[in-house]
Amino acid sequence: MKRRAFLTTATVGAAASTLAAPAIAQGTTRWRMVSAWPRNLPGPGVAAQMLADRITTISGGRLEIELFAAGEIVPGMGVFDAVGEGTADIYHAVPAYWGSKSQGILLFGSQPLGLNAIEQHGWMLHGGGQALYDEMYARFNLKPFLCGNSGPQWAGWFRNEISGVDDLRGLRYRTTGLNSVVMSKLGVAVEAMSGPAMCQALQSGALDAGEFIGPWTDSTLGFQQVAPYYYDNGVGEPSSAEECAVNLDSWNALPEDLQQAVAVAAESLYNPVLTEYNTNHARALRELVAGGTEIRQWPEEIIIAMGNAMGEVMDEMLAHDDELVRRITESFLDYRNLMVEYMTHSETAQLAARELDFSYGGANR
Amino acid sequence: MKRRAFLTTATVGAAASTLAAPAIAQGTTRWRMVSAWPRNLPGPGVAAQMLADRITTISGGRLEIELFAAGEIVPGMGVFDAVGEGTADIYHAVPAYWGSKSQGILLFGSQPLGLNAIEQHGWMLHGGGQALYDEMYARFNLKPFLCGNSGPQWAGWFRNEISGVDDLRGLRYRTTGLNSVVMSKLGVAVEAMSGPAMCQALQSGALDAGEFIGPWTDSTLGFQQVAPYYYDNGVGEPSSAEECAVNLDSWNALPEDLQQAVAVAAESLYNPVLTEYNTNHARALRELVAGGTEIRQWPEEIIIAMGNAMGEVMDEMLAHDDELVRRITESFLDYRNLMVEYMTHSETAQLAARELDFSYGGANR
Repeated sequence: MKRRAFLTTATVGAAASTLAAPAIAQGTTRWRMVSAWPRNLPGPGVAAQMLADRITTISGGRLEIELFAAGEIVPGMGVFDAVGEGTADIYHAVPAYWGSKSQGILLFGSQPLGLNAIEQHGWMLHGGGQALYDEMYARFNLKPFLCGNSGPQWAGWFRNEISGVDDLRGLRYRTTGLNSVVMSKLGVAVEAMSGPAMCQALQSGALDAGEFIGPWTDSTLGFQQVAPYYYDNGVGEPSSAEECAVNLDSWNALPEDLQQAVAVAAESLYNPVLTEYNTNHARALRELVAGGTEIRQWPEEIIIAMGNAMGEVMDEMLAHDDELVRRITESFLDYRNLMVEYMTHSETAQLAARELDFSYGGANR
Repeated sequence: MKRRAFLTTATVGAAASTLAAPAIAQGTTRWRMVSAWPRNLPGPGVAAQMLADRITTISGGRLEIELFAAGEIVPGMGVFDAVGEGTADIYHAVPAYWGSKSQGILLFGSQPLGLNAIEQHGWMLHGGGQALYDEMYARFNLKPFLCGNSGPQWAGWFRNEISGVDDLRGLRYRTTGLNSVVMSKLGVAVEAMSGPAMCQALQSGALDAGEFIGPWTDSTLGFQQVAPYYYDNGVGEPSSAEECAVNLDSWNALPEDLQQAVAVAAESLYNPVLTEYNTNHARALRELVAGGTEIRQWPEEIIIAMGNAMGEVMDEMLAHDDELVRRITESFLDYRNLMVEYMTHSETAQLAARELDFSYGGANR
């Protein structure tokens, strides 16, 4: 607000300086942001604060956002309802939390063997995804935006090694979202719980295994102290989007330039958030390996079984009672088909090519 | 500007309304943007206009950007010097154009068998890249930002099939940037020319082959009518960044909130630009195949030879006379090592997993 005060004073000039103070108050819209995260939780908690600050700054203080962490106004899992009802104006969370509102919402977050983080953004921006996302959230009086992604997840932490599908039957495993549905179809006893609770449950033996996010976040919670095997390639969540959503009345009351400031701020955070996860995961993996964590490859037999189970889930969603869920599923599958078909010639092949044996300034030596 | 006029009038109130008009003029900064592209050229020309519009809108018109296309004030290849000298305030182009200023700049654009588009952004944001990018461009009185990426490129259009390294010797081939250096080491007769010139040269037989970007842009230029074989997996350019750069004096004169508006607008366009290329490339590839274009796989023997040639280029740049080029190269290699090591467990493995044989709502059937 200091910058805004300075600018307004400058623009109205010395003769009108006594008018400056009330003028500022009149020209400022104040919003309350609630979030699903503790204040400044590494990753999403920091991202929520960045979103609030960016909107405030780039609007020159004309739209001022105050962040309230989980539990300060409403519980973390209550932000969707609270913003829809107008208790706050905007929230920061993940679509993966709202499967009980509609299964269709889960596709905006993460899909087993689905889109990577960039393709997920691409579906929104150029594949018809945003219009469907808007239509679904308008039912709850919300206007949504993706504003980050925690990127490729890991299959997780296991007390014992696994070699194939047979080892999954009855396995007590923590996961979330559509991956829960897929793993249940493979006979896994899926359990939902928070990251810290998962750590205790692995230690006590109440859980056999569980996935959270990736090396950075996982090592912060200390999973490496309670489970020796870390399985890579979490195809159950090739990406996991973060979102913000605005109360639709607050949104409609905003002038177009401030609507753009909100949309641009959300869009601008997608890669800073995604690449922070990727970079910190990579650094943390080195430390985990140095500390003795055993990295294991997620078995191909399980990947294929997960792909077939996801085929069943897609068939069920294509026959869903709610026609909007059917349309979201069709749009997602169309975009996924397009990307899988194309990326085999480009990104998939290029990333694989880096693993061939050649010299590269020390990188592949 | 209408929105700004409205807001300013509203904030100063009726009593001060006679002051509103000069106040607006005084409160507005006007910048001239020059670009390396024809007006509204699909891809980068449209992106330049979007950048100008976003900055103007989200600043509430406090920073108004007028775009001049290539040739309107300065030629497309003259924008770097023109903005450094203050003829204009900001430009939109690609780092790949400025190799004659410093070879170090090329690493900010694209590296054979290097970073993908997201990793490239990650190097800037979390791997120390932006500080080096700033340091290099400050030599030319510029403050730079990445603001888009044309994503994974293709190896290009060939009049005859090739099967290995032997077929490259003496091949007259159009490419750019560090890929030119790499391909020259393999005996290729590299030629630099514009896209339309490449099309004519392929038709006349003056060129044997050439790469431009990918299916969308390439089919617009009509390469499919002059060369029958389209080779995928352009490992010579796994991504290719677009940039904007601001005259350093103009930048330093800007208040912090408007600096943020410029930075955030640039950052916000990275994925809209990248995913527009990816999506349109994928759609265009379907049309090319339907129209009879023969898709061929870029041979593994050539990929390995390119990786070894790039190793030589890296060694040369690590021993460069300019210590800043050495530091940029070291930073890039560190980040690439980190990512290659990590992505083999995550993104690379996840994209490969999608190509296994399983059902997925029709996608893999």
